[in-house]
Amino acid sequence: MALYVQKYGGTSVGTVEKIEAVAEKVKGFRDKGHDIVVVVSAMSGETNRLIGLAHEVMEQPTPREMDTLVSTGEQVTISLLCMALNKRGCPARSYTGGQVQILTDNAHMKARIQKIDDEKIHSDLKQGKVVVVAGFQGVDEDGNITTLGRGGSDTTGVALAAALNADECQIYTDVDGVYTTDPRIVAKAQRMEKVTFEEMLEMASLGSKVLQIRSVEFAGKYNVPLRVLSTFQDGPGTLITLEEESEMEKPVISGIAFSRDEAKITVLGVPDIPGVASRILGPVSAANIEVDMIVQNVAADKTTDFTFTVHRNDFNKVMKVVEQVSDDLGAREVTGDDSICKVSIVGVGMRSHAGVASKMFDTLAAESINIQMISTSEIKISVVVSEKYLELGVRALHTAFGLDSESTD
Amino acid sequence: MALYVQKYGGTSVGTVEKIEAVAEKVKGFRDKGHDIVVVVSAMSGETNRLIGLAHEVMEQPTPREMDTLVSTGEQVTISLLCMALNKRGCPARSYTGGQVQILTDNAHMKARIQKIDDEKIHSDLKQGKVVVVAGFQGVDEDGNITTLGRGGSDTTGVALAAALNADECQIYTDVDGVYTTDPRIVAKAQRMEKVTFEEMLEMASLGSKVLQIRSVEFAGKYNVPLRVLSTFQDGPGTLITLEEESEMEKPVISGIAFSRDEAKITVLGVPDIPGVASRILGPVSAANIEVDMIVQNVAADKTTDFTFTVHRNDFNKVMKVVEQVSDDLGAREVTGDDSICKVSIVGVGMRSHAGVASKMFDTLAAESINIQMISTSEIKISVVVSEKYLELGVRALHTAFGLDSESTD
Repeated sequence: MALYVQKYGGTSVGTVEKIEAVAEKVKGFRDKGHDIVVVVSAMSGETNRLIGLAHEVMEQPTPREMDTLVSTGEQVTISLLCMALNKRGCPARSYTGGQVQILTDNAHMKARIQKIDDEKIHSDLKQGKVVVVAGFQGVDEDGNITTLGRGGSDTTGVALAAALNADECQIYTDVDGVYTTDPRIVAKAQRMEKVTFEEMLEMASLGSKVLQIRSVEFAGKYNVPLRVLSTFQDGPGTLITLEEESEMEKPVISGIAFSRDEAKITVLGVPDIPGVASRILGPVSAANIEVDMIVQNVAADKTTDFTFTVHRNDFNKVMKVVEQVSDDLGAREVTGDDSICKVSIVGVGMRSHAGVASKMFDTLAAESINIQMISTSEIKISVVVSEKYLELGVRALHTAFGLDSESTD
Repeated sequence: MALYVQKYGGTSVGTVEKIEAVAEKVKGFRDKGHDIVVVVSAMSGETNRLIGLAHEVMEQPTPREMDTLVSTGEQVTISLLCMALNKRGCPARSYTGGQVQILTDNAHMKARIQKIDDEKIHSDLKQGKVVVVAGFQGVDEDGNITTLGRGGSDTTGVALAAALNADECQIYTDVDGVYTTDPRIVAKAQRMEKVTFEEMLEMASLGSKVLQIRSVEFAGKYNVPLRVLSTFQDGPGTLITLEEESEMEKPVISGIAFSRDEAKITVLGVPDIPGVASRILGPVSAANIEVDMIVQNVAADKTTDFTFTVHRNDFNKVMKVVEQVSDDLGAREVTGDDSICKVSIVGVGMRSHAGVASKMFDTLAAESINIQMISTSEIKISVVVSEKYLELGVRALHTAFGLDSESTD
């Protein structure tokens, strides 16, 4: 008999009917003798409705009051789910973040969990109850309601699993696992049986938006086995663990990630003196623009070219900032391109295999895809290419690295 | 400079625009130097929406979970009101029932307040903040969320005023005070400047639904001056206090209350033996039917007639119950009438004035209104008459007891 922490997201509890279906599912696990702690999000649409109300009042709502407001969304779900369980003769008890004492720091709207009081939960489980906890929210030491930021319900699930030493943290969502790449682009994409935390982090940050990055980091740190499953269809899902598969079985590359909404900015002919990077990026970051890849070419004739990428929404804003900086620096020219995308190959197997990068570049070259930027980490290689090559490039790499499923559908 | 606890009901905070108007009003009081604690209800319609969700899940929702669910309604309002105050440069801080520690017993959905921790509130007020507290909710000693039952926000207001020793508890609503009778029936009805708690209780229970009865009882018990005012127009409202006006100024009768939806049941020819009343009313109460007036005539020829009134909705149900009981008792006959109403005169002045009852009866007789039942208390005389005489009777009494306003509109 195991202890599972199961997290159901907003779409899984989006209507009363869906909440009933989740109750049915949870009761099934409990009837098999497992101890179940459920973490739920707000019903889909509810958080946005509440945020909308706040913005009707104030453009920049007071963070403390915002947390008090939006945390009601999950509170509604926990009570409805408990009722649905009770109706099925399954004893259940709901807890808000404050009631179960999910203690956080006081950084409203982006609080971090510091401690969880597991006493009530253990006592309820011992009495055969299902425990239902509101995701996304906590309480600081002064009793103020805090929230963990969007998607924080995953983090609540992992933190509870860690605190309770659960056998698995199961994230129920609307997909049946993590795929080698987006199945909408590559029909032969396969569900992965297992993936490591590190790989998952690279996948998540690159656009496979199945899990919140923070929850994966958290799970890796506390070695909580994390499983992504579908709420709506049965199946083993994808297990995210610390251990790497033995090399014999493991493909070198686990998956192909990509991100569409990128834009790049290049400052040409920058004087090659120390501090140039920070003089360019300082004002960008001061304007609250997040920078992704950064590449600086080796200097020739005492000038250098400096290129970085940002989210496409920030393109116009960042161009203005950089043009100003460029004048101050005496750079030659600023160019920009907002029709680029990023394609990455990810895999822990890369560590022990040479030639992965050249295989990637060869594959893209064979399709006549020009690589504009390259950036590498220990288990990932990313390239920036023109947006129009995205599908072609992802499919070519998926085939080249042996990820295509054998079935033809 | 005074300390006011101001309670704004659901219609006063029913939209973001109305919440802004309340913020404007509250800020006005604070700018005059007063300390303000605000108690708010859920936005109108929200509590019913939440109850609707619960009933979609379960016919008889689990009380603990129901409280967790519906308490979110007020939590939304407190945060939005604080934002609206903050936007106006007015520092404000919201508290749920759990955060301010409105400690109640654990009777979910009808909890009673036991203690209020006023430390945080006093500290906030000292710092010049407006304190905004969620009405209707509390927390039991195990940290479970409780609610005080419908209309409980008035009670929260009064309890806070008592705990904080406030100068006044102001109940803002959609009427501008308590009237001598319903202005829709008597055009010359007047707003009362003052009324005693006792009178207000008799008025409230008889249908002037301005204030929740429990909050008036509470205010009387702790001698909290209570004022009913309009959210939407300025004015002094009606002050509800312990003191009676000196007799010189005070009219004998303060107001005329009435209730339409009544029905009466008479058991004729009941054997006049001890225990008859309880044998008739026991099964009625067991069927969850609330009985209002009860009259038993003096016995003649060893039988008696027993009459009582109930809400009209319960009429058919109660007739069935009583017919059964009547057979068991060997009573002669059961008759019923569901087209009656109750008219009452209320006034503490009655205590020191003889002849009030006969003046009432004379007034009704002069209009040829037949009195079917009479019931009296120290400060109230109620009569049951045919429903068709309601308006005529109320108007005649309003004039006879000198309550008509002098203006002719």
